[in-house]
Amino acid sequence: MSTSSFTMPFAGNDLNACEHERDPKELQAFLNDPKAKAMLLDRGRPALLPEGGLKWVKPNDLIGQNIADPGPLFLGKQGDVPVFAFSISTENALTEIESFQDMRVVAAQLSPMELALAGQAKSLFDWHDEHRFCAKCGAGSRGNRGGTTRQCDSCGAAHFPRVNPVTIMLVINGDDCLLGRGHGWPEGSFSALAGFVSPGETIEEGCAREIFEEVGVTIKSPRYVFSQPWPFPSQLMIGLICETDDRELVIDANEIEDARWFSRDEVEAVFAKRSDAFKRPPRFTIAHQLLRHWLKEG
Amino acid sequence: MSTSSFTMPFAGNDLNACEHERDPKELQAFLNDPKAKAMLLDRGRPALLPEGGLKWVKPNDLIGQNIADPGPLFLGKQGDVPVFAFSISTENALTEIESFQDMRVVAAQLSPMELALAGQAKSLFDWHDEHRFCAKCGAGSRGNRGGTTRQCDSCGAAHFPRVNPVTIMLVINGDDCLLGRGHGWPEGSFSALAGFVSPGETIEEGCAREIFEEVGVTIKSPRYVFSQPWPFPSQLMIGLICETDDRELVIDANEIEDARWFSRDEVEAVFAKRSDAFKRPPRFTIAHQLLRHWLKEG
Repeated sequence: MSTSSFTMPFAGNDLNACEHERDPKELQAFLNDPKAKAMLLDRGRPALLPEGGLKWVKPNDLIGQNIADPGPLFLGKQGDVPVFAFSISTENALTEIESFQDMRVVAAQLSPMELALAGQAKSLFDWHDEHRFCAKCGAGSRGNRGGTTRQCDSCGAAHFPRVNPVTIMLVINGDDCLLGRGHGWPEGSFSALAGFVSPGETIEEGCAREIFEEVGVTIKSPRYVFSQPWPFPSQLMIGLICETDDRELVIDANEIEDARWFSRDEVEAVFAKRSDAFKRPPRFTIAHQLLRHWLKEG
Repeated sequence: MSTSSFTMPFAGNDLNACEHERDPKELQAFLNDPKAKAMLLDRGRPALLPEGGLKWVKPNDLIGQNIADPGPLFLGKQGDVPVFAFSISTENALTEIESFQDMRVVAAQLSPMELALAGQAKSLFDWHDEHRFCAKCGAGSRGNRGGTTRQCDSCGAAHFPRVNPVTIMLVINGDDCLLGRGHGWPEGSFSALAGFVSPGETIEEGCAREIFEEVGVTIKSPRYVFSQPWPFPSQLMIGLICETDDRELVIDANEIEDARWFSRDEVEAVFAKRSDAFKRPPRFTIAHQLLRHWLKEG
Protein backbone atom coordinates (compact mmCIF):
# COMPACT_ATOMS: atom_id res chain seq x y z
CA MET A 1 0.00 0.00 0.00
CA SER A 2 1.30 3.38 -0.94
CA THR A 3 -1.05 5.15 1.48
CA SER A 4 0.92 4.35 4.62
CA SER A 5 -0.33 7.05 6.98
CA PHE A 6 -3.98 6.36 6.21
CA THR A 7 -6.06 3.82 8.15
CA MET A 8 -8.86 2.17 6.22
CA PRO A 9 -12.12 2.46 8.19
CA PHE A 10 -12.82 -0.80 10.12
CA ALA A 11 -9.12 -1.75 9.81
CA GLY A 12 -6.19 -1.00 12.13
CA ASN A 13 -7.03 -3.49 14.91
CA ASP A 14 -3.77 -3.80 16.88
CA LEU A 15 -4.79 -6.52 19.35
CA ASN A 16 -2.77 -9.63 19.94
CA ALA A 17 -5.32 -12.37 19.22
CA CYS A 18 -3.56 -14.73 21.70
CA GLU A 19 -4.25 -17.75 19.48
CA HIS A 20 -2.54 -20.09 21.93
CA GLU A 21 -4.16 -18.78 25.13
CA ARG A 22 -7.80 -19.62 24.53
CA ASP A 23 -8.58 -22.66 26.65
CA PRO A 24 -11.37 -22.22 29.25
CA LYS A 25 -8.93 -21.66 32.13
CA GLU A 26 -6.93 -19.03 30.28
CA LEU A 27 -10.09 -17.25 29.14
CA GLN A 28 -11.41 -17.20 32.70
CA ALA A 29 -8.15 -15.63 33.91
CA PHE A 30 -8.49 -12.92 31.25
CA LEU A 31 -12.11 -12.28 32.32
CA ASN A 32 -11.01 -11.95 35.96
CA ASP A 33 -8.15 -9.61 35.13
CA PRO A 34 -8.95 -6.25 36.82
CA LYS A 35 -7.67 -4.50 33.70
CA ALA A 36 -10.09 -6.38 31.40
CA LYS A 37 -12.73 -4.42 29.54
CA ALA A 38 -15.74 -5.35 27.45
CA MET A 39 -17.88 -3.65 24.85
CA LEU A 40 -21.56 -4.50 24.47
CA LEU A 41 -23.43 -5.15 21.26
CA ASP A 42 -27.12 -5.65 20.69
CA ARG A 43 -27.73 -7.39 17.36
CA GLY A 44 -24.47 -6.02 15.97
CA ARG A 45 -24.98 -2.48 17.26
CA PRO A 46 -22.39 -1.36 19.84
CA ALA A 47 -23.31 0.57 23.00
CA LEU A 48 -22.11 4.17 22.83
CA LEU A 49 -21.52 6.81 25.48
CA PRO A 50 -23.81 9.86 25.28
CA GLU A 51 -20.79 11.95 24.20
CA GLY A 52 -19.76 9.38 21.55
CA GLY A 53 -17.17 6.64 21.80
CA LEU A 54 -17.70 3.03 22.85
CA LYS A 55 -19.07 2.35 26.31
CA TRP A 56 -16.66 -0.04 28.07
CA VAL A 57 -17.66 -2.09 31.11
CA LYS A 58 -15.89 -4.59 33.38
CA PRO A 59 -16.54 -8.13 32.14
CA ASN A 60 -17.24 -9.26 35.71
CA ASP A 61 -20.13 -6.79 35.96
CA LEU A 62 -21.85 -8.82 33.25
CA ILE A 63 -21.47 -12.26 34.75
CA GLY A 64 -24.90 -13.40 35.87
CA GLN A 65 -26.53 -11.47 33.02
CA ASN A 66 -27.11 -14.87 31.36
CA ILE A 67 -24.93 -14.24 28.34
CA ALA A 68 -26.04 -16.65 25.63
CA ASP A 69 -23.91 -18.63 23.20
CA PRO A 70 -21.14 -17.93 22.15
CA GLY A 71 -20.56 -16.33 25.58
CA PRO A 72 -17.86 -13.72 26.11
CA LEU A 73 -16.08 -13.00 22.83
CA PHE A 74 -12.37 -12.60 23.50
CA LEU A 75 -10.98 -10.19 20.92
CA GLY A 76 -7.43 -10.36 22.27
CA LYS A 77 -5.05 -8.25 24.32
CA GLN A 78 -4.31 -4.60 23.77
CA GLY A 79 -0.96 -4.33 25.53
CA ASP A 80 -1.80 -6.02 28.83
CA VAL A 81 -5.55 -5.30 28.69
CA PRO A 82 -7.79 -8.26 27.77
CA VAL A 83 -10.55 -6.97 25.48
CA PHE A 84 -13.93 -8.68 25.29
CA ALA A 85 -17.26 -8.15 23.57
CA PHE A 86 -20.62 -9.34 24.87
CA SER A 87 -23.70 -9.77 22.76
CA ILE A 88 -26.73 -8.82 24.82
CA SER A 89 -30.33 -8.16 24.02
CA THR A 90 -31.92 -4.89 25.09
CA GLU A 91 -34.83 -6.96 26.42
CA ASN A 92 -32.71 -7.96 29.41
CA ALA A 93 -30.02 -5.29 29.25
CA LEU A 94 -28.55 -3.38 32.13
CA THR A 95 -30.93 -0.46 32.45
CA GLU A 96 -28.23 2.20 32.35
CA ILE A 97 -27.10 1.13 28.91
CA GLU A 98 -29.30 3.17 26.67
CA SER A 99 -27.66 3.72 23.36
CA PHE A 100 -27.04 0.93 20.85
CA GLN A 101 -26.25 2.34 17.45
CA ASP A 102 -25.71 1.06 13.92
CA MET A 103 -22.04 1.64 13.06
CA ARG A 104 -23.01 2.89 9.62
CA VAL A 105 -24.83 5.76 11.34
CA VAL A 106 -22.34 6.58 14.10
CA ALA A 107 -19.00 5.69 12.46
CA ALA A 108 -17.78 9.27 12.92
CA GLN A 109 -18.43 9.05 16.70
CA LEU A 110 -15.98 6.19 17.11
CA SER A 111 -12.18 6.30 17.00
CA PRO A 112 -10.57 4.27 14.19
CA MET A 113 -9.57 1.61 16.73
CA GLU A 114 -13.07 1.46 18.26
CA LEU A 115 -14.56 1.05 14.80
CA ALA A 116 -12.12 -1.77 14.03
CA LEU A 117 -12.83 -3.61 17.29
CA ALA A 118 -16.61 -3.19 17.17
CA GLY A 119 -16.59 -4.22 13.50
CA GLN A 120 -14.66 -7.39 14.26
CA ALA A 121 -17.02 -8.19 17.15
CA LYS A 122 -20.06 -7.65 14.94
CA SER A 123 -18.71 -9.95 12.21
CA LEU A 124 -18.07 -12.71 14.72
CA PHE A 125 -21.43 -12.38 16.51
CA ASP A 126 -23.28 -12.33 13.18
CA TRP A 127 -21.44 -15.49 12.16
CA HIS A 128 -22.42 -17.22 15.42
CA ASP A 129 -26.04 -16.12 14.98
CA GLU A 130 -26.23 -17.61 11.49
CA HIS A 131 -24.34 -20.82 12.33
CA ARG A 132 -25.89 -22.25 15.51
CA PHE A 133 -26.06 -25.70 13.88
CA CYS A 134 -23.36 -27.91 12.42
CA ALA A 135 -23.57 -27.76 8.61
CA LYS A 136 -21.95 -31.21 8.46
CA CYS A 137 -24.36 -33.18 10.69
CA GLY A 138 -27.22 -30.82 11.67
CA ALA A 139 -26.64 -31.00 15.44
CA GLY A 140 -26.45 -27.84 17.57
CA SER A 141 -22.91 -26.48 17.85
CA ARG A 142 -21.37 -24.18 20.47
CA GLY A 143 -18.99 -21.23 20.49
CA ASN A 144 -15.46 -22.23 21.40
CA ARG A 145 -12.00 -20.69 22.00
CA GLY A 146 -13.41 -17.34 23.12
CA GLY A 147 -15.81 -17.17 20.19
CA THR A 148 -13.31 -17.59 17.34
CA THR A 149 -14.56 -21.06 16.41
CA ARG A 150 -17.65 -23.24 16.85
CA GLN A 151 -17.45 -26.85 17.95
CA CYS A 152 -19.89 -29.63 17.12
CA ASP A 153 -19.91 -32.10 20.00
CA SER A 154 -21.97 -34.54 17.96
CA CYS A 155 -19.71 -35.18 14.94
CA GLY A 156 -16.59 -33.44 16.22
CA ALA A 157 -16.38 -30.87 13.38
CA ALA A 158 -14.73 -27.52 14.16
CA HIS A 159 -16.15 -24.55 12.26
CA PHE A 160 -14.33 -21.33 11.46
CA PRO A 161 -15.75 -17.83 10.86
CA ARG A 162 -16.66 -17.03 7.30
CA VAL A 163 -14.94 -14.18 5.49
CA ASN A 164 -16.44 -13.57 2.05
CA PRO A 165 -14.08 -12.02 -0.51
CA VAL A 166 -15.77 -9.32 -2.59
CA THR A 167 -14.23 -7.31 -5.42
CA ILE A 168 -15.19 -3.63 -5.55
CA MET A 169 -13.92 -1.62 -8.44
CA LEU A 170 -13.73 1.69 -10.21
CA VAL A 171 -13.98 1.22 -13.96
CA ILE A 172 -12.20 4.03 -15.79
CA ASN A 173 -12.67 5.20 -19.38
CA GLY A 174 -10.41 8.11 -20.21
CA ASP A 175 -11.14 10.70 -17.53
CA ASP A 176 -14.49 9.20 -16.56
CA CYS A 177 -15.40 6.75 -13.87
CA LEU A 178 -18.30 4.29 -13.80
CA LEU A 179 -20.57 4.27 -10.76
CA GLY A 180 -23.78 2.36 -10.16
CA ARG A 181 -26.66 2.19 -7.71
CA GLY A 182 -28.49 -0.78 -6.23
CA HIS A 183 -32.24 -1.22 -6.01
CA GLY A 184 -33.73 0.66 -3.08
CA TRP A 185 -30.72 2.88 -2.45
CA PRO A 186 -31.34 6.46 -1.23
CA GLU A 187 -32.15 8.78 -4.11
CA GLY A 188 -29.10 10.04 -5.98
CA SER A 189 -26.64 7.65 -4.32
CA PHE A 190 -23.98 6.12 -6.57
CA SER A 191 -21.02 3.94 -5.65
CA ALA A 192 -18.46 1.52 -7.05
CA LEU A 193 -19.71 -1.76 -8.54
CA ALA A 194 -19.00 -4.85 -6.45
CA GLY A 195 -19.57 -8.57 -6.30
CA PHE A 196 -18.60 -11.77 -4.50
CA VAL A 197 -15.63 -13.79 -5.72
CA SER A 198 -16.86 -17.26 -6.76
CA PRO A 199 -15.09 -20.61 -6.32
CA GLY A 200 -12.66 -21.10 -9.22
CA GLU A 201 -11.96 -17.40 -9.79
CA THR A 202 -8.97 -15.14 -9.23
CA ILE A 203 -9.60 -11.64 -7.85
CA GLU A 204 -9.13 -10.20 -11.35
CA GLU A 205 -11.49 -12.74 -12.93
CA GLY A 206 -14.18 -12.04 -10.34
CA CYS A 207 -13.83 -8.33 -11.01
CA ALA A 208 -14.09 -8.79 -14.81
CA ARG A 209 -17.06 -11.17 -14.59
CA GLU A 210 -18.99 -8.95 -12.22
CA ILE A 211 -18.52 -5.82 -14.36
CA PHE A 212 -19.51 -7.71 -17.49
CA GLU A 213 -22.62 -9.17 -15.82
CA GLU A 214 -23.78 -5.87 -14.34
CA VAL A 215 -23.06 -3.39 -17.14
CA GLY A 216 -21.84 -5.42 -20.17
CA VAL A 217 -18.42 -3.77 -20.15
CA THR A 218 -15.15 -5.64 -20.81
CA ILE A 219 -12.33 -4.50 -18.56
CA LYS A 220 -8.56 -4.65 -18.90
CA SER A 221 -5.59 -4.23 -16.56
CA PRO A 222 -7.35 -4.59 -13.19
CA ARG A 223 -5.08 -3.19 -10.51
CA TYR A 224 -5.35 -3.93 -6.77
CA VAL A 225 -5.38 -0.79 -4.61
CA PHE A 226 -6.28 -1.74 -1.00
CA SER A 227 -8.72 -3.83 1.00
CA GLN A 228 -11.17 -3.42 3.86
CA PRO A 229 -12.88 -5.70 6.37
CA TRP A 230 -16.59 -4.92 6.09
CA PRO A 231 -18.73 -6.16 8.98
CA PHE A 232 -22.16 -6.24 7.29
CA PRO A 233 -21.90 -9.14 7.93
CA SER A 234 -18.33 -10.25 7.12
CA GLN A 235 -16.84 -9.33 3.78
CA LEU A 236 -13.25 -8.80 2.75
CA MET A 237 -13.66 -5.90 0.32
CA ILE A 238 -10.90 -6.03 -2.30
CA GLY A 239 -10.59 -2.64 -3.99
CA LEU A 240 -9.47 -2.41 -7.62
CA ILE A 241 -9.18 0.17 -10.37
CA CYS A 242 -9.49 -1.06 -13.95
CA GLU A 243 -9.72 0.41 -17.43
CA THR A 244 -12.15 -0.18 -20.26
CA ASP A 245 -12.39 0.88 -23.89
CA ASP A 246 -16.15 0.31 -23.81
CA ARG A 247 -18.47 3.22 -23.35
CA GLU A 248 -21.94 1.79 -23.89
CA LEU A 249 -23.59 0.20 -20.87
CA VAL A 250 -25.94 -2.79 -20.94
CA ILE A 251 -27.41 -2.71 -17.47
CA ASP A 252 -28.67 -5.95 -15.91
CA ALA A 253 -31.76 -4.83 -13.99
CA ASN A 254 -31.61 -8.04 -11.92
CA GLU A 255 -28.36 -6.85 -10.42
CA ILE A 256 -28.44 -3.04 -10.29
CA GLU A 257 -30.88 -0.20 -10.81
CA ASP A 258 -28.64 2.15 -12.75
CA ALA A 259 -25.04 2.90 -13.74
CA ARG A 260 -23.51 6.02 -15.29
CA TRP A 261 -20.25 7.61 -16.29
CA PHE A 262 -19.13 10.51 -14.11
CA SER A 263 -16.30 12.83 -15.12
CA ARG A 264 -13.36 13.46 -12.82
CA ASP A 265 -14.56 17.06 -12.54
CA GLU A 266 -18.02 15.94 -11.42
CA VAL A 267 -16.60 13.54 -8.82
CA GLU A 268 -14.15 16.19 -7.62
CA ALA A 269 -16.96 18.73 -7.22
CA VAL A 270 -19.11 16.27 -5.26
CA PHE A 271 -16.21 15.39 -2.95
CA ALA A 272 -15.46 19.10 -2.44
CA LYS A 273 -19.19 19.58 -1.67
CA ARG A 274 -19.46 22.08 -4.54
CA SER A 275 -22.00 19.86 -6.34
CA ASP A 276 -24.76 17.41 -5.61
CA ALA A 277 -24.60 15.70 -9.02
CA PHE A 278 -24.75 12.49 -7.01
CA LYS A 279 -24.63 11.39 -3.40
CA ARG A 280 -21.16 10.02 -2.72
CA PRO A 281 -20.58 6.82 -0.73
CA PRO A 282 -19.96 7.51 2.99
CA ARG A 283 -16.45 8.13 4.24
CA PHE A 284 -16.24 4.80 6.11
CA THR A 285 -16.68 2.78 2.88
CA ILE A 286 -13.87 1.52 0.68
CA ALA A 287 -15.79 2.92 -2.32
CA HIS A 288 -15.32 6.43 -0.87
CA GLN A 289 -11.61 5.73 -0.34
CA LEU A 290 -11.23 4.32 -3.88
CA LEU A 291 -12.78 7.46 -5.35
CA ARG A 292 -10.47 9.66 -3.25
CA HIS A 293 -7.51 7.55 -4.40
CA TRP A 294 -8.52 7.97 -8.05
CA LEU A 295 -8.93 11.74 -7.63
CA LYS A 296 -5.45 11.98 -6.08
CA GLU A 297 -3.89 9.92 -8.88
CA GLY A 298 -5.35 12.13 -11.60
CA MET B 1 -1.39 -7.95 -13.24
CA SER B 2 1.78 -7.30 -15.17
CA THR B 3 2.09 -10.94 -16.22
CA SER B 4 -0.60 -10.75 -18.89
CA SER B 5 0.31 -13.75 -21.06
CA PHE B 6 0.54 -16.12 -18.12
CA THR B 7 -2.42 -18.11 -16.79
CA MET B 8 -2.32 -18.92 -13.09
CA PRO B 9 -2.89 -22.66 -12.57
CA PHE B 10 -6.56 -23.37 -11.66
CA ALA B 11 -7.55 -19.97 -13.13
CA GLY B 12 -8.62 -19.04 -16.65
CA ASN B 13 -12.16 -20.50 -16.59
CA ASP B 14 -13.90 -18.82 -19.54
CA LEU B 15 -17.41 -20.20 -19.05
CA ASN B 16 -20.50 -18.04 -18.96
CA ALA B 17 -22.01 -18.98 -15.59
CA CYS B 18 -25.55 -18.23 -16.93
CA GLU B 19 -26.61 -16.81 -13.56
CA HIS B 20 -30.12 -16.08 -14.84
CA GLU B 21 -30.73 -19.43 -16.58
CA ARG B 22 -30.68 -21.80 -13.66
CA ASP B 23 -34.27 -22.75 -12.93
CA PRO B 24 -35.12 -26.48 -13.16
CA LYS B 25 -36.62 -26.19 -16.66
CA GLU B 26 -33.61 -24.29 -18.03
CA LEU B 27 -31.18 -26.72 -16.43
CA GLN B 28 -33.07 -29.68 -17.90
CA ALA B 29 -32.85 -28.11 -21.37
CA PHE B 30 -29.09 -27.71 -20.94
CA LEU B 31 -28.79 -31.36 -19.84
CA ASN B 32 -30.76 -32.49 -22.92
CA ASP B 33 -28.71 -30.36 -25.31
CA PRO B 34 -26.90 -32.81 -27.65
CA LYS B 35 -23.80 -30.59 -27.38
CA ALA B 36 -23.72 -30.84 -23.56
CA LYS B 37 -20.76 -32.53 -21.89
CA ALA B 38 -19.97 -33.60 -18.35
CA MET B 39 -16.87 -34.42 -16.39
CA LEU B 40 -16.92 -36.95 -13.57
CA LEU B 41 -15.38 -36.62 -10.14
CA ASP B 42 -15.06 -39.16 -7.37
CA ARG B 43 -14.46 -37.43 -4.02
CA GLY B 44 -12.91 -34.45 -5.79
CA ARG B 45 -10.73 -36.49 -8.15
CA PRO B 46 -11.61 -36.06 -11.84
CA ALA B 47 -11.78 -38.98 -14.29
CA LEU B 48 -8.91 -38.88 -16.78
CA LEU B 49 -8.37 -40.53 -20.15
CA PRO B 50 -5.54 -43.08 -20.30
CA GLU B 51 -3.56 -40.65 -22.49
CA GLY B 52 -4.20 -37.72 -20.11
CA GLY B 53 -6.87 -35.02 -20.31
CA LEU B 54 -10.33 -35.03 -18.75
CA LYS B 55 -12.73 -37.77 -19.73
CA TRP B 56 -15.96 -36.11 -20.96
CA VAL B 57 -19.27 -37.95 -21.22
CA LYS B 58 -22.78 -37.05 -22.35
CA PRO B 59 -24.86 -35.97 -19.34
CA ASN B 60 -27.74 -38.11 -20.56
CA ASP B 61 -25.59 -41.26 -20.34
CA LEU B 62 -25.44 -40.66 -16.59
CA ILE B 63 -29.13 -40.21 -15.92
CA GLY B 64 -30.33 -43.26 -14.03
CA GLN B 65 -26.93 -43.61 -12.33
CA ASN B 66 -28.62 -42.32 -9.16
CA ILE B 67 -26.64 -39.11 -8.88
CA ALA B 68 -26.90 -37.93 -5.30
CA ASP B 69 -27.34 -34.38 -3.99
CA PRO B 70 -26.48 -31.80 -5.30
CA GLY B 71 -27.25 -33.56 -8.62
CA PRO B 72 -25.72 -32.35 -11.89
CA LEU B 73 -23.44 -29.40 -11.26
CA PHE B 74 -23.92 -26.85 -14.05
CA LEU B 75 -20.61 -25.02 -14.51
CA GLY B 76 -21.94 -22.82 -17.32
CA LYS B 77 -21.67 -22.56 -21.09
CA GLN B 78 -18.48 -22.64 -23.11
CA GLY B 79 -19.65 -20.94 -26.28
CA ASP B 80 -22.86 -22.90 -26.95
CA VAL B 81 -21.79 -26.04 -25.08
CA PRO B 82 -23.38 -26.57 -21.65
CA VAL B 83 -20.72 -27.95 -19.29
CA PHE B 84 -21.62 -30.11 -16.30
CA ALA B 85 -19.81 -32.03 -13.58
CA PHE B 86 -21.17 -35.11 -11.82
CA SER B 87 -19.96 -36.38 -8.49
CA ILE B 88 -20.05 -40.16 -8.51
CA SER B 89 -18.67 -42.82 -6.26
CA THR B 90 -16.49 -45.56 -7.72
CA GLU B 91 -18.62 -48.05 -5.78
CA ASN B 92 -21.38 -47.65 -8.35
CA ALA B 93 -19.43 -46.10 -11.22
CA LEU B 94 -19.72 -46.97 -14.89
CA THR B 95 -17.30 -49.86 -15.22
CA GLU B 96 -15.33 -48.36 -18.11
CA ILE B 97 -14.29 -45.31 -16.05
CA GLU B 98 -11.14 -46.46 -14.45
CA SER B 99 -8.97 -43.51 -13.65
CA PHE B 100 -9.85 -40.94 -10.99
CA GLN B 101 -6.80 -38.90 -10.07
CA ASP B 102 -5.86 -36.26 -7.51
CA MET B 103 -5.30 -33.01 -9.40
CA ARG B 104 -2.19 -32.32 -7.36
CA VAL B 105 -0.67 -35.46 -8.88
CA VAL B 106 -1.88 -35.14 -12.47
CA ALA B 107 -2.01 -31.34 -12.93
CA ALA B 108 0.47 -31.56 -15.81
CA GLN B 109 -1.81 -34.02 -17.66
CA LEU B 110 -4.64 -31.47 -17.84
CA SER B 111 -4.90 -28.39 -20.03
CA PRO B 112 -5.07 -25.06 -18.14
CA MET B 113 -8.80 -24.88 -18.92
CA GLU B 114 -9.45 -28.45 -17.76
CA LEU B 115 -7.59 -27.74 -14.53
CA ALA B 116 -9.69 -24.59 -13.99
CA LEU B 117 -13.00 -26.39 -14.62
CA ALA B 118 -12.18 -29.47 -12.58
CA GLY B 119 -10.89 -27.26 -9.77
CA GLN B 120 -14.11 -25.25 -9.70
CA ALA B 121 -16.17 -28.45 -9.71
CA LYS B 122 -14.11 -29.90 -6.86
CA SER B 123 -14.53 -26.75 -4.74
CA LEU B 124 -18.29 -26.81 -5.21
CA PHE B 125 -18.70 -30.56 -4.55
CA ASP B 126 -16.51 -30.31 -1.44
CA TRP B 127 -18.67 -27.45 -0.22
CA HIS B 128 -21.87 -29.47 -0.75
CA ASP B 129 -20.32 -32.46 1.04
CA GLU B 130 -19.49 -30.37 4.10
CA HIS B 131 -22.78 -28.44 4.18
CA ARG B 132 -25.61 -30.96 3.84
CA PHE B 133 -27.42 -29.32 6.77
CA CYS B 134 -28.65 -25.77 7.27
CA ALA B 135 -26.30 -23.98 9.70
CA LYS B 136 -29.17 -21.67 10.65
CA CYS B 137 -31.79 -24.26 11.71
CA GLY B 138 -30.14 -27.70 11.50
CA ALA B 139 -32.54 -29.18 8.92
CA GLY B 140 -31.26 -30.98 5.84
CA SER B 141 -30.69 -28.64 2.88
CA ARG B 142 -30.53 -29.41 -0.84
CA GLY B 143 -28.43 -28.30 -3.79
CA ASN B 144 -30.14 -25.64 -5.89
CA ARG B 145 -29.61 -23.61 -9.08
CA GLY B 146 -27.41 -26.22 -10.71
CA GLY B 147 -25.31 -26.66 -7.59
CA THR B 148 -24.28 -23.06 -7.05
CA THR B 149 -26.40 -22.63 -3.91
CA ARG B 150 -28.07 -24.77 -1.24
CA GLN B 151 -31.64 -24.21 -0.14
CA CYS B 152 -33.15 -24.97 3.25
CA ASP B 153 -36.82 -25.85 2.77
CA SER B 154 -37.38 -25.77 6.52
CA CYS B 155 -36.37 -22.19 7.42
CA GLY B 156 -36.04 -20.81 3.89
CA ALA B 157 -32.36 -19.85 4.15
CA ALA B 158 -30.28 -19.83 0.98
CA HIS B 159 -26.63 -20.78 1.43
CA PHE B 160 -23.76 -19.76 -0.83
CA PRO B 161 -20.44 -21.52 -1.46
CA ARG B 162 -17.63 -20.61 0.85
CA VAL B 163 -14.46 -19.02 -0.51
CA ASN B 164 -11.80 -18.59 2.17
CA PRO B 165 -9.32 -15.77 1.58
CA VAL B 166 -5.75 -16.76 2.45
CA THR B 167 -2.65 -14.59 2.25
CA ILE B 168 0.50 -16.28 0.97
CA MET B 169 3.67 -14.28 0.97
CA LEU B 170 7.34 -14.10 0.23
CA VAL B 171 9.16 -12.20 2.94
CA ILE B 172 12.29 -10.57 1.58
CA ASN B 173 15.36 -9.39 3.47
CA GLY B 174 17.96 -7.92 1.15
CA ASP B 175 18.58 -10.60 -1.46
CA ASP B 176 17.17 -13.41 0.66
CA CYS B 177 13.73 -14.89 0.81
CA LEU B 178 12.01 -16.60 3.74
CA LEU B 179 10.46 -20.04 3.17
CA GLY B 180 8.92 -22.41 5.68
CA ARG B 181 7.67 -25.97 5.91
CA GLY B 182 4.62 -27.44 7.59
CA HIS B 183 4.53 -30.44 9.85
CA GLY B 184 4.50 -33.69 7.91
CA TRP B 185 5.62 -32.20 4.61
CA PRO B 186 7.86 -34.29 2.34
CA GLU B 187 11.50 -34.08 3.37
CA GLY B 188 13.28 -30.97 2.11
CA SER B 189 10.09 -29.21 0.92
CA PHE B 190 9.91 -25.48 1.56
CA SER B 191 7.29 -22.98 0.43
CA ALA B 192 5.87 -19.51 1.08
CA LEU B 193 4.23 -18.87 4.46
CA ALA B 194 0.44 -18.55 4.37
CA GLY B 195 -2.61 -18.09 6.57
CA PHE B 196 -6.32 -17.39 6.56
CA VAL B 197 -7.57 -13.80 6.67
CA SER B 198 -9.65 -13.33 9.84
CA PRO B 199 -12.79 -11.22 10.30
CA GLY B 200 -11.76 -7.61 10.94
CA GLU B 201 -8.52 -7.73 8.95
CA THR B 202 -7.34 -6.24 5.67
CA ILE B 203 -5.25 -8.41 3.36
CA GLU B 204 -2.10 -6.58 4.49
CA GLU B 205 -2.98 -6.96 8.19
CA GLY B 206 -3.64 -10.69 7.76
CA CYS B 207 -0.27 -11.05 6.04
CA ALA B 208 1.58 -9.14 8.78
CA ARG B 209 -0.16 -11.02 11.63
CA GLU B 210 0.47 -14.43 10.12
CA ILE B 211 4.19 -13.75 9.52
CA PHE B 212 4.59 -12.41 13.04
CA GLU B 213 2.78 -15.41 14.58
CA GLU B 214 4.71 -18.00 12.59
CA VAL B 215 8.27 -16.61 12.61
CA GLY B 216 8.27 -13.51 14.86
CA VAL B 217 9.20 -11.18 11.99
CA THR B 218 7.72 -7.69 11.49
CA ILE B 219 7.03 -6.90 7.85
CA LYS B 220 6.70 -3.64 5.95
CA SER B 221 5.36 -2.60 2.54
CA PRO B 222 3.31 -5.68 1.67
CA ARG B 223 2.64 -5.65 -2.05
CA TYR B 224 -0.09 -7.63 -3.83
CA VAL B 225 1.18 -9.63 -6.81
CA PHE B 226 -1.57 -11.99 -8.03
CA SER B 227 -4.16 -14.45 -6.75
CA GLN B 228 -5.23 -18.04 -7.33
CA PRO B 229 -8.35 -20.12 -6.69
CA TRP B 230 -7.15 -23.20 -4.81
CA PRO B 231 -9.61 -26.10 -4.70
CA PHE B 232 -8.32 -27.95 -1.60
CA PRO B 233 -11.06 -27.29 -0.65
CA SER B 234 -11.87 -23.69 -1.63
CA GLN B 235 -9.33 -20.99 -0.90
CA LEU B 236 -8.70 -17.68 -2.61
CA MET B 237 -4.91 -17.52 -2.38
CA ILE B 238 -3.79 -13.88 -2.29
CA GLY B 239 -0.12 -13.67 -3.21
CA LEU B 240 2.07 -10.91 -1.72
CA ILE B 241 5.70 -9.93 -1.52
CA CYS B 242 6.82 -7.96 1.53
CA GLU B 243 10.05 -6.73 3.06
CA THR B 244 11.48 -7.04 6.52
CA ASP B 245 14.48 -5.62 8.38
CA ASP B 246 14.38 -8.55 10.82
CA ARG B 247 16.73 -11.43 10.32
CA GLU B 248 16.24 -13.55 13.42
CA LEU B 249 13.38 -16.05 13.36
CA VAL B 250 11.27 -17.11 16.33
CA ILE B 251 9.48 -20.15 14.97
CA ASP B 252 6.10 -21.10 16.44
CA ALA B 253 6.21 -24.89 16.44
CA ASN B 254 2.40 -25.00 16.76
CA GLU B 255 2.14 -23.49 13.30
CA ILE B 256 5.14 -24.65 11.26
CA GLU B 257 8.01 -27.13 11.51
CA ASP B 258 10.79 -24.91 10.20
CA ALA B 259 11.57 -21.70 8.32
CA ARG B 260 14.82 -20.50 6.77
CA TRP B 261 16.35 -17.77 4.67
CA PHE B 262 17.31 -18.79 1.15
CA SER B 263 19.45 -16.60 -1.09
CA ARG B 264 18.32 -15.62 -4.55
CA ASP B 265 21.18 -17.71 -5.94
CA GLU B 266 20.00 -20.78 -4.03
CA VAL B 267 16.41 -20.36 -5.19
CA GLU B 268 17.57 -19.73 -8.76
CA ALA B 269 19.70 -22.86 -8.71
CA VAL B 270 16.81 -24.97 -7.39
CA PHE B 271 14.44 -23.61 -10.06
CA ALA B 272 17.07 -24.27 -12.75
CA LYS B 273 17.43 -27.81 -11.32
CA ARG B 274 21.10 -27.19 -10.69
CA SER B 275 20.64 -27.70 -6.95
CA ASP B 276 18.54 -29.68 -4.49
CA ALA B 277 19.14 -27.29 -1.57
CA PHE B 278 15.39 -27.58 -1.04
CA LYS B 279 12.38 -29.11 -2.78
CA ARG B 280 10.51 -26.30 -4.49
CA PRO B 281 6.71 -25.98 -4.40
CA PRO B 282 5.04 -27.63 -7.43
CA ARG B 283 4.44 -25.62 -10.58
CA PHE B 284 0.64 -25.52 -10.11
CA THR B 285 0.93 -23.64 -6.79
CA ILE B 286 0.88 -19.88 -6.37
CA ALA B 287 3.97 -20.24 -4.14
CA HIS B 288 5.90 -21.55 -7.14
CA GLN B 289 4.63 -18.66 -9.26
CA LEU B 290 5.51 -16.10 -6.54
CA LEU B 291 9.07 -17.44 -6.38
CA ARG B 292 9.38 -17.28 -10.19
CA HIS B 293 8.03 -13.71 -10.07
CA TRP B 294 10.60 -12.73 -7.44
CA LEU B 295 13.45 -14.30 -9.44
CA LYS B 296 12.37 -12.38 -12.55
CA GLU B 297 12.15 -9.10 -10.62
CA GLY B 298 15.70 -9.47 -9.25
